[in-house]
Amino acid sequence: MTTAARAALRFDGLVLRAIDQTRLPFAEVELELRSADEVADAIRRLAIRGAPLIGVAAAYAVAIELARDPVALEPACAMLRSARPTAVNLAWAVDRVRSAAIDDPDPAAAALSEARAIHLEEERASAAMADHGAALLAGCRRILTHCNTGFLAAPGRGTALAVIAELHDRGELESVLATESRPLLQGARLTVFELGWLGIPHELVVDSAAPGLIAAGAVDAVIVGCDRVAANGDVANKVGTYMLALAARAAGIPFVVAGPTSTIDLRTASGSEIAIEERDPDEVRFALSQPLASSGTPCRNPAFDVTPAALITALVTERGVARPPSAATIAAL
Amino acid sequence: MTTAARAALRFDGLVLRAIDQTRLPFAEVELELRSADEVADAIRRLAIRGAPLIGVAAAYAVAIELARDPVALEPACAMLRSARPTAVNLAWAVDRVRSAAIDDPDPAAAALSEARAIHLEEERASAAMADHGAALLAGCRRILTHCNTGFLAAPGRGTALAVIAELHDRGELESVLATESRPLLQGARLTVFELGWLGIPHELVVDSAAPGLIAAGAVDAVIVGCDRVAANGDVANKVGTYMLALAARAAGIPFVVAGPTSTIDLRTASGSEIAIEERDPDEVRFALSQPLASSGTPCRNPAFDVTPAALITALVTERGVARPPSAATIAAL
Repeated sequence: MTTAARAALRFDGLVLRAIDQTRLPFAEVELELRSADEVADAIRRLAIRGAPLIGVAAAYAVAIELARDPVALEPACAMLRSARPTAVNLAWAVDRVRSAAIDDPDPAAAALSEARAIHLEEERASAAMADHGAALLAGCRRILTHCNTGFLAAPGRGTALAVIAELHDRGELESVLATESRPLLQGARLTVFELGWLGIPHELVVDSAAPGLIAAGAVDAVIVGCDRVAANGDVANKVGTYMLALAARAAGIPFVVAGPTSTIDLRTASGSEIAIEERDPDEVRFALSQPLASSGTPCRNPAFDVTPAALITALVTERGVARPPSAATIAAL
Repeated sequence: MTTAARAALRFDGLVLRAIDQTRLPFAEVELELRSADEVADAIRRLAIRGAPLIGVAAAYAVAIELARDPVALEPACAMLRSARPTAVNLAWAVDRVRSAAIDDPDPAAAALSEARAIHLEEERASAAMADHGAALLAGCRRILTHCNTGFLAAPGRGTALAVIAELHDRGELESVLATESRPLLQGARLTVFELGWLGIPHELVVDSAAPGLIAAGAVDAVIVGCDRVAANGDVANKVGTYMLALAARAAGIPFVVAGPTSTIDLRTASGSEIAIEERDPDEVRFALSQPLASSGTPCRNPAFDVTPAALITALVTERGVARPPSAATIAAL
């Protein structure tokens, strides 16, 4: 019996309805998005987020735009592709819908059909990742995760959090340590919300507490999602992922990455080639609406970091597990 | 020419006047503390903080209490010692003042004299650490530091930040990366305030961004303070220190700890014996007054973590540098 997830977005009558993730957990507000422009804006400001989910949202956005204006295909695709630079699923999904539409006598219908196909595939990928990941992590009762990777981040039950939910369903999970994931607090706001919804015991920690708790023996395994996997198995994911991989290696516990194969970018040879998005410094200067530092404080705000393949125990995809991730094991998927 | 520091506390007519560090940088409020009870409360709620500074504050508090009530020595010492469990300077300073007072015909005068001596010694220690540390880090132009270790944390110019200020005075420093230091944001609120006061170029980052920036080559050296150094060189310091040591080691850059010898606890054999203070979960649930997670979210809130001596390039004290810190190099100090 699978724990029920909620859908973070649904498509209905050429309107994309999405939970505004900037407002959770304090308010549940549904956005109604009626153009590619509105979807791109929601992606940019992280109202819709999570690598697989922004791919699906952008796929529907192309279909919406083609229904509105058949000649808008190329500008809409370009705008959506560039809404965020790091997660490769975005460009991948946009390109799939574009390819399906461009040679079809009914481009709008073809785009919609392709978007629905991507959505369904990612839902199935979530279920398959849950199975593969739960088999891999059998016996790990105390799991640490970072950022948000559940039903708010991906169709179905998500990526890393789908594995955690599956371990819980199998009665193998004791508890989850969730990092708050500054600056935008996707862990404190979204993962805690999801774990509560799923009835999974959990504790929240500040990000920097995680490595010390791993060293102190409080964690059996770490599992995170990914925004882009390079051909050699290096992974770009939410800033803070790298320190967890270092700590897991030092403690001798598994460090596992979960993501659909749509997150693998074979055109990126290694992590050093991945463009890391630097976001608005006010995200660092504030926590939600609370100022933390004097206004105008100079900041750096990289949204992601790169974890080298050598620190990753396994990459869990819907097609199986690359263990450890490498050019060879990834190609074998 | 030494950059001028401000004094975080001053003792005047049996009143301890201290900047309320919970209010910085948004308000500069001076507390007037007239009893050991008031000082202990200020230490507990981090209005006075930083391992060397809480030692000095507690030393004056014993003197205040003896002047108020000569028989109050033992209960005052016990209460002050237990105000915070991890920083050893607190117990060390209280015990020194107690010993000076207990066999003296004028205990109040003896206590005051000893407190002033500790204060002066820690000021001189700051200057000596600055010299030793700046010599050690010559050529490191981009320094990362964690939490707050300047004039708000210790007499004089502080510990790690005194080294940074000295490098700046010598014209060797390009810039400082300061971590925000969740949950209580001593980096965002206090270190940024101090760096601004000192005119040192700096950028603020969320804690979890630091390891990735170290890996990306943005940092030449890491220097932090310490709350307790065990006899074998293991160091307890602000939560998040351990991940920086891991990242520095992986990147092959120096990871340096600065602290006066009053922070060394030879009675603690290794880091595993250091009691790690777990603080109020609301510190995690909030950032200053902003709720970040649903009320009642279960949290863990360790205030410190332990960095093993094997990851530490050098321990800078006022008596010289233990490089690397070990039972032998620490004994040689």
